[in-house]
Amino acid sequence: MNGLMQSHPLLISNLLVHAERHHGEQQIVSRRVEGDLHRTTYKELASRARKVAKALAALGVKPGQTVGTLAWNGYRHMELYYGVSGSGAVLHTLNPRLHPDQVVYIADHAEDQVLCFDATFLPLVEAVAARLKTVKHFVLMTDRAHMPASTKVPNLLCYEELLEAQDDKYDWPQFDENAASSLCYTSGTTGNPKGVLYSHRSTVLHAFAGALPDTLNVSARDVVLPVVPMFHVNAWGLVYVACMVGTKLVFPGAALDGKSLYELFEGEGVTMSAGVPTVWQGLLAYTEANNLKFSTMNRTVVGGSACPPAMMQAFQQKYGVNVLHAWGMTEMSPLGTVCTLKPKHLKMGPQEQMAVQAKQGRAVFGVDMKIVDAEGKELPMDGKASGELLVKGPWIVSQYFKGEGGNPLVDGWFPTGDVSTIDPDGYMQITDRSKDVIKSGGEWIGSIDIENIAMAHPAVAMAACIAAFHPKWDERPLLVVVKKPGAEVTRDELLKFFEGKIAKWWTPDDVVFADAIPLGATGKMQKNKLRETYKDHKLPTA
Amino acid sequence: MNGLMQSHPLLISNLLVHAERHHGEQQIVSRRVEGDLHRTTYKELASRARKVAKALAALGVKPGQTVGTLAWNGYRHMELYYGVSGSGAVLHTLNPRLHPDQVVYIADHAEDQVLCFDATFLPLVEAVAARLKTVKHFVLMTDRAHMPASTKVPNLLCYEELLEAQDDKYDWPQFDENAASSLCYTSGTTGNPKGVLYSHRSTVLHAFAGALPDTLNVSARDVVLPVVPMFHVNAWGLVYVACMVGTKLVFPGAALDGKSLYELFEGEGVTMSAGVPTVWQGLLAYTEANNLKFSTMNRTVVGGSACPPAMMQAFQQKYGVNVLHAWGMTEMSPLGTVCTLKPKHLKMGPQEQMAVQAKQGRAVFGVDMKIVDAEGKELPMDGKASGELLVKGPWIVSQYFKGEGGNPLVDGWFPTGDVSTIDPDGYMQITDRSKDVIKSGGEWIGSIDIENIAMAHPAVAMAACIAAFHPKWDERPLLVVVKKPGAEVTRDELLKFFEGKIAKWWTPDDVVFADAIPLGATGKMQKNKLRETYKDHKLPTA
Repeated sequence: MNGLMQSHPLLISNLLVHAERHHGEQQIVSRRVEGDLHRTTYKELASRARKVAKALAALGVKPGQTVGTLAWNGYRHMELYYGVSGSGAVLHTLNPRLHPDQVVYIADHAEDQVLCFDATFLPLVEAVAARLKTVKHFVLMTDRAHMPASTKVPNLLCYEELLEAQDDKYDWPQFDENAASSLCYTSGTTGNPKGVLYSHRSTVLHAFAGALPDTLNVSARDVVLPVVPMFHVNAWGLVYVACMVGTKLVFPGAALDGKSLYELFEGEGVTMSAGVPTVWQGLLAYTEANNLKFSTMNRTVVGGSACPPAMMQAFQQKYGVNVLHAWGMTEMSPLGTVCTLKPKHLKMGPQEQMAVQAKQGRAVFGVDMKIVDAEGKELPMDGKASGELLVKGPWIVSQYFKGEGGNPLVDGWFPTGDVSTIDPDGYMQITDRSKDVIKSGGEWIGSIDIENIAMAHPAVAMAACIAAFHPKWDERPLLVVVKKPGAEVTRDELLKFFEGKIAKWWTPDDVVFADAIPLGATGKMQKNKLRETYKDHKLPTA
Repeated sequence: MNGLMQSHPLLISNLLVHAERHHGEQQIVSRRVEGDLHRTTYKELASRARKVAKALAALGVKPGQTVGTLAWNGYRHMELYYGVSGSGAVLHTLNPRLHPDQVVYIADHAEDQVLCFDATFLPLVEAVAARLKTVKHFVLMTDRAHMPASTKVPNLLCYEELLEAQDDKYDWPQFDENAASSLCYTSGTTGNPKGVLYSHRSTVLHAFAGALPDTLNVSARDVVLPVVPMFHVNAWGLVYVACMVGTKLVFPGAALDGKSLYELFEGEGVTMSAGVPTVWQGLLAYTEANNLKFSTMNRTVVGGSACPPAMMQAFQQKYGVNVLHAWGMTEMSPLGTVCTLKPKHLKMGPQEQMAVQAKQGRAVFGVDMKIVDAEGKELPMDGKASGELLVKGPWIVSQYFKGEGGNPLVDGWFPTGDVSTIDPDGYMQITDRSKDVIKSGGEWIGSIDIENIAMAHPAVAMAACIAAFHPKWDERPLLVVVKKPGAEVTRDELLKFFEGKIAKWWTPDDVVFADAIPLGATGKMQKNKLRETYKDHKLPTA
């Protein structure tokens, strides 16, 4: 017997319709590539998103076909988010930080029919346009005045002109909520990038879970600035959450330096932000150098990689900005856990509380997780046992686009490639990527703990711990360190710094100093490259 | 093209599994009918809900069949919520305040196979048991020690014994999320009550929307005491929201007097509550008489009927407890709107802010609403135009159980029977029930405004404004007033009290004093009875 409730599919266009009807005057502020600060409202955004849908249809885009974007966080990109997916086409956000060869591979693999891009990326598009097999139209996301006088891109179209040619009379189509809505490729540190194809259902459910008080806690009284790019797992869902709750949005565009961000935080009264640790490093360096405070920001979500405890401390103790550690993956839409405290933690001292906050957090409702040993047997949630982390839920991948890589699931669970513990309160802590874990004499050493300790040393700007060959133990930890400009520290001083902070056998066998640590397109350290660089490094303990 | 996300149905059992795995130690405190305060955890609750599922199967209950409850808010009732729906059966919460004839009608209409009830309701069950056509088993929700020595109920079973006979090894079945989960009958002031049949999908989506920061804003750091009964539209969804976010729950059982509630609020550190205005009246009378404050409660949700502004003021200004006005219906699961403020309201003075808070609030995401004129044409959201309120969304009724009353929808929208305005910020304000509106010379007079003004008079305990016959205007407002014990006020003093507070032609033509105003089973004033009582009342203006 079925219930007798109304049947409405969960569609991305519903989010926009809700924002337009119930939060029509709420503001969306964007720093544009053109240089100025642009202001619009949800009402205007909804009207323009309908024009986008009509303009794409006029270009011949059919439901289920793919539209690519190479764009910063801004209102035009948001119009495409809703206009493309809302019309039944699939939004494919490309990461412009990828190597041009990868951009070509991904756009071809996704069969993008149209490519919309910010002026910043005109040189990139000029470099790859001739090699793209499926793109029929190139659209520069600007007005006529900012179009280039000449370009190597064939038949370059102007975004604002395409919109001007349409009126906004358009009814969002109703279709199966399982229809594909958007496509995002994994960064692919090994092998070709793989596509994750989200659905309308997964996106709306993820937005519900993302807005919850213990997740990102977004309300109509917030002012949200997503630093996390809209080309990186849909800005962690914030662009959808925003419409669901009618929050004011502030988009930083291309200006992600500390000064530009700070000015936007203060000028627009931002209360909440989200991004990867590297962005916050730039912002904190700027506020520290200029002795500035945040007057409205009260929390920030840090994910993408583990937040160094020193950064967390600076935010919380010096600036009064609460740091929420979050964890997820492209394959998870991305939200999996957020480290919101429980009542008992609120009674703890700052040190103890920080130890909880250093964990990646609790599963948001909808995501289930477990850790398993090498045989796939579930390990206890005791905060001690560490094993490979598996997840399942309605916004987690079942297979990659076009079946690449075969069936990724194990008994219905998705193996994350992370190694973690889960404590009895449900807090998960990543100890390593399974491929980065250091296997010393049959025991596992997690590299993240070691890096966090090194990062707490005042002379260290960045640290990576990797496995180095050892004739007796197979692998032993080697610490690669980038010093802060002008700072000095020796190998022995650093090794001494570990004393009492970690088990003796986890202490690195050696330290090497480097000018830089290679970062991938999403800001993560590329340890595979480091392992390659130091594959012949001879440990003094060997 | 479909997305490639995992396929998981939205099931009520998922909520319990999440709470057990990630909030296993969180507490559930219940004041029992047996008299004591009982403590359990989500882990224990989940284990016992699995036993409930097995016990019901052992009694012969099949998926899709209905299990009735007559019970207060408590952990055993919560076990039934999850055990019945989770196993695929349908939970039918009966309102014990209904007339026994209606209880019989509803239980028969729902075809309840089993009836579970608290000891309080043994006399009621004894009175109706012989007349119930479909109930095969009667279960008293207590342990062996509290079972009656003799009873007129045939083969009375003991709840705790049924559970003891089972172990907790049970996998929640997976099935279509559109399956029926629970059944609640409207109060049926006219005609027979009609059943609203919720689904697993509607219930889980409603829980997501209910937990959002701008709705009930429930987190793992809250302590929630639902005063609103679990026999009244699933305690407004709080029992589901609680599992979703892992909040501590406090159940008041049968003790809804001011003293008992206050002791529970203070003793358990309650931060949030929800209920109808009449309950709060009792609580506030107690705190005022004893000069008490709330030390942990920071907000309460008031719905069911409009919150008198005087009560709102008392809560907020005297006790520092924020009042969230909410509106919904049995047909809406029930949440439709909640009056959470927008940033611009926070800058207003208390008077202006109160005017916003007096409205029923903004639509929660998932619910769309519009007001229409007599011809069904949509009226503007300008805060002035008032018309019949229509709603749609995935947790709103499409038809009543067994098709009673035919198709209730108009072009896919459900007519609420309320008359309201919607302002440009999306705030809806109910001006009347469409059947209670007073039609004076072709114009509509809303009775709620008039009642709110009367309620602000210090001598008035309760006020109802109804239409009385007028030879020239057809209808004119008549105010029926119940005075506070010991207070005095005359007809003319009351009429004078309206001066300057309302349009002159909205002022009642007469006042009559009554000992009581009849209330329905859900605490709402029964104006149809009042209209009957005063149908021959001769207005002095006639």
